[in-house]
Amino acid sequence: MKDVKRVYTFGNGLAEGRADMRNLLGGKGANLAEMNLIGVPVPPGFTITTDVCNEYYELGKEKVVALLQEEVKAAIANVESLMNCKFGDVENPLLLSVRSGARASMPGMMDTILNLGLNDTVVEGMAAKTGNSRFAYDAYRRFVQMYGDVVLDMKPTDKTEIDPFEAIIEEVKEEKGVHLDNELEVEDLKKLVQLFKAAIKERTGKDFPDNPEEQLWGAICAVFNSWMNERAILYRKMEGIPAEWGTAVNVQAMVFGNMGETSATGVCFSRDAASGEDLFNGEWLVNAQGEDVVAGIRTPQQITLIGSRRWAELQGISEEERAAHYPSMEEAMPEMYKELDELQTKLENHYRDMQDMEFTVQEGKLWFLQTRNGKRTGAAMVKIAMDLLEQGMIDEKTAIKRCEPQKLDELLHPVFNKTELKKAKSLTRGLPASPGAACGQIVFFADDAEKWAADGHKIVLVRIETSPEDLAGMAVAEGILTARGGMTSHAAVVARGMGKCCVSGAGAINVDYKSKTVEIDGILLKEGDFISLNGTTGDVFKGEISTEAAELSGDFSKLMDLCDKYTRLQVRTNADTPHDAQVARSFGAVGIGLCRTEHMFFDAEKIVAMREMILASDEQGRKNALAKLLPYQKADFVGIFKAMDGCPVNIRLLDPPLHEFVPHDAKGQEEMAQQMGVTVATIQQRVASLSECNPMLGHRGCRLGNTYPEITATQTRAILSAACELKKQGLDPQPEIMVPLIGTEAEFKMQEEVIRKEAATVFAEEGIEVDFKVGTMIEIPRAALIAGKIASRAEYFSFGTNDLTQMTFGYSRDDIASFLPVYLEKKILSVDPFQVLDQQGVGQLVQMAVENGRNERPNLKCGICGEHGGEPNSVKFCDKVGLNYVSCSPFRVPIARLAAAQAVLENA
Amino acid sequence: MKDVKRVYTFGNGLAEGRADMRNLLGGKGANLAEMNLIGVPVPPGFTITTDVCNEYYELGKEKVVALLQEEVKAAIANVESLMNCKFGDVENPLLLSVRSGARASMPGMMDTILNLGLNDTVVEGMAAKTGNSRFAYDAYRRFVQMYGDVVLDMKPTDKTEIDPFEAIIEEVKEEKGVHLDNELEVEDLKKLVQLFKAAIKERTGKDFPDNPEEQLWGAICAVFNSWMNERAILYRKMEGIPAEWGTAVNVQAMVFGNMGETSATGVCFSRDAASGEDLFNGEWLVNAQGEDVVAGIRTPQQITLIGSRRWAELQGISEEERAAHYPSMEEAMPEMYKELDELQTKLENHYRDMQDMEFTVQEGKLWFLQTRNGKRTGAAMVKIAMDLLEQGMIDEKTAIKRCEPQKLDELLHPVFNKTELKKAKSLTRGLPASPGAACGQIVFFADDAEKWAADGHKIVLVRIETSPEDLAGMAVAEGILTARGGMTSHAAVVARGMGKCCVSGAGAINVDYKSKTVEIDGILLKEGDFISLNGTTGDVFKGEISTEAAELSGDFSKLMDLCDKYTRLQVRTNADTPHDAQVARSFGAVGIGLCRTEHMFFDAEKIVAMREMILASDEQGRKNALAKLLPYQKADFVGIFKAMDGCPVNIRLLDPPLHEFVPHDAKGQEEMAQQMGVTVATIQQRVASLSECNPMLGHRGCRLGNTYPEITATQTRAILSAACELKKQGLDPQPEIMVPLIGTEAEFKMQEEVIRKEAATVFAEEGIEVDFKVGTMIEIPRAALIAGKIASRAEYFSFGTNDLTQMTFGYSRDDIASFLPVYLEKKILSVDPFQVLDQQGVGQLVQMAVENGRNERPNLKCGICGEHGGEPNSVKFCDKVGLNYVSCSPFRVPIARLAAAQAVLENA
Repeated sequence: MKDVKRVYTFGNGLAEGRADMRNLLGGKGANLAEMNLIGVPVPPGFTITTDVCNEYYELGKEKVVALLQEEVKAAIANVESLMNCKFGDVENPLLLSVRSGARASMPGMMDTILNLGLNDTVVEGMAAKTGNSRFAYDAYRRFVQMYGDVVLDMKPTDKTEIDPFEAIIEEVKEEKGVHLDNELEVEDLKKLVQLFKAAIKERTGKDFPDNPEEQLWGAICAVFNSWMNERAILYRKMEGIPAEWGTAVNVQAMVFGNMGETSATGVCFSRDAASGEDLFNGEWLVNAQGEDVVAGIRTPQQITLIGSRRWAELQGISEEERAAHYPSMEEAMPEMYKELDELQTKLENHYRDMQDMEFTVQEGKLWFLQTRNGKRTGAAMVKIAMDLLEQGMIDEKTAIKRCEPQKLDELLHPVFNKTELKKAKSLTRGLPASPGAACGQIVFFADDAEKWAADGHKIVLVRIETSPEDLAGMAVAEGILTARGGMTSHAAVVARGMGKCCVSGAGAINVDYKSKTVEIDGILLKEGDFISLNGTTGDVFKGEISTEAAELSGDFSKLMDLCDKYTRLQVRTNADTPHDAQVARSFGAVGIGLCRTEHMFFDAEKIVAMREMILASDEQGRKNALAKLLPYQKADFVGIFKAMDGCPVNIRLLDPPLHEFVPHDAKGQEEMAQQMGVTVATIQQRVASLSECNPMLGHRGCRLGNTYPEITATQTRAILSAACELKKQGLDPQPEIMVPLIGTEAEFKMQEEVIRKEAATVFAEEGIEVDFKVGTMIEIPRAALIAGKIASRAEYFSFGTNDLTQMTFGYSRDDIASFLPVYLEKKILSVDPFQVLDQQGVGQLVQMAVENGRNERPNLKCGICGEHGGEPNSVKFCDKVGLNYVSCSPFRVPIARLAAAQAVLENA
Repeated sequence: MKDVKRVYTFGNGLAEGRADMRNLLGGKGANLAEMNLIGVPVPPGFTITTDVCNEYYELGKEKVVALLQEEVKAAIANVESLMNCKFGDVENPLLLSVRSGARASMPGMMDTILNLGLNDTVVEGMAAKTGNSRFAYDAYRRFVQMYGDVVLDMKPTDKTEIDPFEAIIEEVKEEKGVHLDNELEVEDLKKLVQLFKAAIKERTGKDFPDNPEEQLWGAICAVFNSWMNERAILYRKMEGIPAEWGTAVNVQAMVFGNMGETSATGVCFSRDAASGEDLFNGEWLVNAQGEDVVAGIRTPQQITLIGSRRWAELQGISEEERAAHYPSMEEAMPEMYKELDELQTKLENHYRDMQDMEFTVQEGKLWFLQTRNGKRTGAAMVKIAMDLLEQGMIDEKTAIKRCEPQKLDELLHPVFNKTELKKAKSLTRGLPASPGAACGQIVFFADDAEKWAADGHKIVLVRIETSPEDLAGMAVAEGILTARGGMTSHAAVVARGMGKCCVSGAGAINVDYKSKTVEIDGILLKEGDFISLNGTTGDVFKGEISTEAAELSGDFSKLMDLCDKYTRLQVRTNADTPHDAQVARSFGAVGIGLCRTEHMFFDAEKIVAMREMILASDEQGRKNALAKLLPYQKADFVGIFKAMDGCPVNIRLLDPPLHEFVPHDAKGQEEMAQQMGVTVATIQQRVASLSECNPMLGHRGCRLGNTYPEITATQTRAILSAACELKKQGLDPQPEIMVPLIGTEAEFKMQEEVIRKEAATVFAEEGIEVDFKVGTMIEIPRAALIAGKIASRAEYFSFGTNDLTQMTFGYSRDDIASFLPVYLEKKILSVDPFQVLDQQGVGQLVQMAVENGRNERPNLKCGICGEHGGEPNSVKFCDKVGLNYVSCSPFRVPIARLAAAQAVLENA
């Protein structure tokens, strides 16, 4: 074993490791080595390999320490020589940091120790060397606290206890009568160190180690131990990281930015993280620690002059004042700045992406502590990817991979004015059901919404929950807020379809329809009061915050074009109206994957005929009522086929249970009775007879079509006569007729027969034929299980993964809110399966159905039209199992297009 | 082709075919040949083989007629010689019947022609020969009508038209001013024949063939044609009969029992079909046609003297009157009777089963027209099988196979007094939800039921639907009638579990709780009025019909013992109370497969604590309430373990959504508010917050246990401390703890951890350990899909096929009544999947889960505890896929035991 290399040193432009040795050195270790190799100054140090972690668990602590002894000693000597100081030395001490670093990023899962090497004598040397006792003792007490916690296991005994060190600090502050940590003086800090050590001894029985070497071994072993702590194990399990990978340990010289006026610390970005602009920027502070930049106690200054001037302008600070009090680093430390600028360019060029860097200047010497690819807004993400592509730094495939599909969402919806948003305080937070920002006056009823909107008001519809009866009101609202319902509740689904801001399931709001008020966190809002919603975060604000429309930049459409070069999956849209269809087409949809017909029945005139049908006691009565609906339906389809000329339009036959079309309130029932010329009791009886215990699993979908075939016939007639009319006008309508909720072969067969028979009649009457397909939703587990049989008749499958998820899990999406939060918190579910397709269970059914279906009918077209069609991971799964297309709400089409292109690159 | 034999003759003790030539000759043809061979006189004739049917479809009518010509000619000559008359002869005509006869029985699917060979001249000869013009012309007009319909395709053009021949008969009767067919005279019948022929010519353009040979070929071809009629095709598809099997055609001499006082006709049984007694019996009529015996116009007489005397006694007819007016055949035709008795014995000995026979005596000559295994009651079925076994006529395996499991049900429940039942008229018919008969006074509310029952009344609970709150009321009722809900609705499931009569989903009853009345078919019944229910047929009767308890005969227990010799599957029971457990054990259950714990919470004291738990705002509050429930739960389990000493008891943790435990009416909520010491508004709010859109898919099962682990812990404590207590007493409790509604591995793991932790605590406290298992329901499709993962932790699976069927089909069993009848009628479903396990879909999931589960854990115990566990076909499926046991309601245990034994014999 002696001949294995266990320690890799780095520093001063040399390194024994490299970026591609990630498996051995961990991500951090490999990166530290790489930075050295490209000439970026990082505090010298060394990495103990991940293999040692496995040895640690095989051989135990003592043997591993023995095995490491010589190499670590040599590596420390190297650091000492580079830093020109000595570990454990009283006059010129070297302090060390000890950090974990696994092959895959496991943020916050494992332990870190800083300022290692201090003890009662070294601290004095440190004080003397820096001329700053407070600095030295503050570092010391932090070290004892951190070491006590991590290495000596000085932790709260249960959740109710606060951190034992913090408790001691509180006591001391109380004694002294101060409130802030930085009000403590050197003597107080000294006292804290002693109290800490005594407390450790008392609780753990362990003496705090004064010997720096002993400290170091303790810290190294603590990092190895943390590989097996509970949260790390759980995290690995969730992320599928094998325990054998192990963690490396990185030991580095400490550097300090708070050693006087020639010291500084800062954070910088190689490009603008908000806009993507190719402009170096960042913030810094003289004589400060890294945490001071972000802590907000001192106002950080801008690094570049141009950044500084922009900042001052925004703040309303004069150039004189700025130059005097908030100089940029470019002005204050021009040499340092020049070096920083050169190095950031070097790093970006090396990593070929926008870098987010941390640096420290210790007494005139610049050190990089970290560099990583920077987080960015959706707009910046697209701009940077396209700029880097144009600048030749990355190729097309990389540019596509660089963009996160989800973040495109930000580019497609209105946003709040940032300045106003900063001042606003969120009243409560619901679910971010449909992204964007909305502001308007509160109304509580759909018909009020229509009236207010007609009068020119911008309104927000506030409901306990929404139902199809609220559609017209939702259509005219800026946004929708509901007290109940999850991410896939009616409100959420419809709002996303409309591209309209929605916050759903805001449990803290109390809606009182009678008084037309809503109470939120003790604040009572009335009809007409202003409210603002952030559908991207779920925040609800009192009053007005103005919104700004998002712009689709040229970079965005460049990205989309690029995606189309690589993509295999087609992207269709879920759209029920010509307007939605047009929006989706402008976003690149190549067809409609789901056109729901039921939404067409809620207009004032149509609902009357629909209700007549429901009330009819026999087939003839239903036929008469349906005949009245026919021209409306036909007109709707004409509009949609026109908007989608030349593209396939997949129309789902009537799906929801009939009780969704009848009024459930006394007033509505009275109106209906009058309209129908029957008694209220008759209406009540019919409504009652339609009510169901579990409507989700009730009389709906093809069960309606099979009990009332005349509905299917009428819808078929409307679809195909609309298509004939347009074909005569020279257009190219491509109807697909989809039977919903199929569970048995016979159900499909009977519906198909009705459709084909009616089609033949229509074509004979029209004297023209239109090509059309008859397919089915696969949304019931049984349909997936017997897909082969169904495919013997159905020309295409469209996976309705919303319902399929409901039935495969046995979760009602309208009721899941009562246990989903607990399930997510306890990690029983890693994600909401209505948002991200469950590949193991639901996906297994999808895959099985595709395979069995294509065994029977090799050219079977398969698509997905559930909400998952716009969720990137789910889209990638769809690509993997060989679907032909995904379909999603118009505003998610670009997301799906990007995900579809990435799927090809990833699955290749 | 010429050398193939296409026609097989039979008659006068000779036959070219045999019983084992069923594939070639069809069932009827083979049987007719066989009867000849054993010396039973049947009218001579011949069978055209099933192969000819295929030739018919390959070669067409003309070629096949040519191929058959010679053989048929010869066969007819044979019949003519045996019957001593001539086909088409005017003086001594032979008439023929032409019937289909496929390999498998296809009752009523294909066509038959009788009296073939008549025409305007032959009919006169027939009249002369018989001396009965009316007889001859009635036969003639029937022949023309039947031939016109079947061969010449003279059918109604659509559903609205009545049969065209019947229309003509009606016209003639109207002209004549008579009402009944038999009021028509010879001249009228002659006229009808001419009108029929004219109508046929007018509508079909075809002349009615006068030539008997032409008639015969037309009839033969019509039978072949009927093999491909729509209903036959559909029937074959449903039954899985291949089209290539084809049908044979049987041509036989007609014989007539209405040719005078030496002619007769009758139906007889070799044993008593009601009791199973080994006693020849039957009914006959002198000078009558077969249909007269069953038509009820003349009172048929008994065949045997002993039967005749028994009959007279029941009818209150004196021996003198009987002998004078209703003599037995034994008395009236002693020679004929002797021959008949010998032949029936011969037939039973030959077929080794009770025979149901039809015979005709034509002018002193006895002919058997048919023999088949007789239908019988459940009691007769068991007695006959055991008698035949004892008499050495069949072996054990045959005896087991001979019994239909479903029919055992009749032996286990009360039945109506037959005499009273005959007089009663059914008001309406609901679903036969739980078998047996019940009679009692109507009450509408569970608490009223308890009061009335306490006062000594027998009551029937009438509800729109039942909920767990009604349990106590159901328990004291004789029977339950509901307006809503299917075969697996709450009422149905609970009633079957209690072995109590229930009619559910009687849509025609209108219950008005306010006025405490129920309106059925215009009749208004009040609280206290008597009503009678037949849970075996679904019939509802006004007034009292007395019921008789069924007896378990010695034969029944002999049969059960026999089954146990062969069976592989174990049969457990679903039981929630010691009483049910005892009943089931007495029926042979070897364990409890499903013990639902929620039913234990509805007693007055328990529900209060349960509601306290529901109302509690935090874990501690819930724990306090649960602590109150603990002793009750423990006592319940002590009772059940005692009743099931030495047998496994599988206890399901709390499953239903919490809203089932809170009152939904204003009165109940007020009471609860008082009991809990909170405002009614608080109760209302909590009830509202518990309400769900689709409770079936909501917050229930392990979702409760995972959100409130303290419930699981308390139940575990109750189960295991009960077990410890009994073990200390020297008993052998065998608890199995089952987690319901698992969909993910993590859900099971968390529940298992809670259970094992609590178990360790209980055992430590008790100072004793009890072996127990932790398993899970597989009732969610996803659980079946990932069964391998779940089996890595679960020690057993119990398939909850009720819920699994609900979710696999997407059918709510509480709502299925709105479309199930249509689906059954249109043959979209061949059976209710909640009654008979859907092997293709749900069964696929079961099989998959068993296989994947056992791959992971080879000794995984698998059982089924859904309603299907007591349904014979489903039990056989369970045997086939290798389950260890089925579990069913106590009263279905014998059925399952028989089915389990048959499964072994069939799957061998």
